[in-house]
Amino acid sequence: MTGREIDNLIKLLARLPGLGPRSARRAVLQMLKKPETLMLPLAKALEDTAQAMTTCHVCGNIDVTDPCHICAGAGRQHDMICVVEEVQDLWALERGSSFKGLYHVLGGTLSPLDGVGPDDLRIDQLVTRVRETGVNEVILATNLTVDGQTTAHYITERLVETGVKVTRLAHGVPVGGELDYLDDGTLTAALRARS
Amino acid sequence: MTGREIDNLIKLLARLPGLGPRSARRAVLQMLKKPETLMLPLAKALEDTAQAMTTCHVCGNIDVTDPCHICAGAGRQHDMICVVEEVQDLWALERGSSFKGLYHVLGGTLSPLDGVGPDDLRIDQLVTRVRETGVNEVILATNLTVDGQTTAHYITERLVETGVKVTRLAHGVPVGGELDYLDDGTLTAALRARS
Repeated sequence: MTGREIDNLIKLLARLPGLGPRSARRAVLQMLKKPETLMLPLAKALEDTAQAMTTCHVCGNIDVTDPCHICAGAGRQHDMICVVEEVQDLWALERGSSFKGLYHVLGGTLSPLDGVGPDDLRIDQLVTRVRETGVNEVILATNLTVDGQTTAHYITERLVETGVKVTRLAHGVPVGGELDYLDDGTLTAALRARS
Repeated sequence: MTGREIDNLIKLLARLPGLGPRSARRAVLQMLKKPETLMLPLAKALEDTAQAMTTCHVCGNIDVTDPCHICAGAGRQHDMICVVEEVQDLWALERGSSFKGLYHVLGGTLSPLDGVGPDDLRIDQLVTRVRETGVNEVILATNLTVDGQTTAHYITERLVETGVKVTRLAHGVPVGGELDYLDDGTLTAALRARS
């Protein structure tokens, strides 16, 4: 087929989510046409990130500095912590850029069937963090799945002793959403939380 | 949002065909979870390929050696040349692995509207190559588009003086294709070329 180096590159690219062998080939061909402007910069960015990346010991975010740029950032409200399941949830909230507090990444949800217990998540760290720093409010932003709900309940109970205010994200009709296309669960939640 | 290095990486990845900002983010997150097994090897493969890649001066294929591994390969029939528009067409034919001859990449099609004339394609090189090496058959595998057809006609005329046998790929019903879903052009071609 193609040379061994190119084949190897296609195979590696095809392992990325959202790319298969066919789209990996297209991507490689595109890159081969402009090695200087796309291929070499991409190689460098990958290497730099791989070598510099680290997990923030405070919140669990992935970044190139520890503490991460959010925990270390000026202009963030340090008395508010938003608890999310995974790093991608943190990124999603940051894209909205309406939340100016700090985060805490759990690293998953409680899931007895998969053998994930409280010790496998960063829950103890959260409780310690709430107790030791002057946190006024913990916003639970776990997903509205069974596991996400269970985890939120468990965290709420664990945080009772600290006396911190615990809130949850509102559930309801998405902005721009049409009622006709919404699932029943969201409609029920939206009705119940009407204001 | 995320750290500057990670943002930069997402932006570069999002420029690949088939990937947008959202899938680039997913890909980066996936890679951040396994930097040793995916991120660093990918960086190395990209760098190696970018530095080693070259265009074969014989056939126009992109490879890490010149002449490319097909032109230099033992076990290929050197008396047959398959003419394709682009490198991806060559790769597609190689995947089928039923063709054992050599290739010639034109680098596009004749297109007066876009200002692409015979001198912009590797047609002169093809004629010289046919004349100087012992080629028995030239298979035209340009696409069945107006430009592809025009290019094939032009090449056929240019090759008349060399006396080489010029053939075209058969057009017809794809294997596994259903008549009901085929376009009229393909059906007409299949009827005309019935055997």
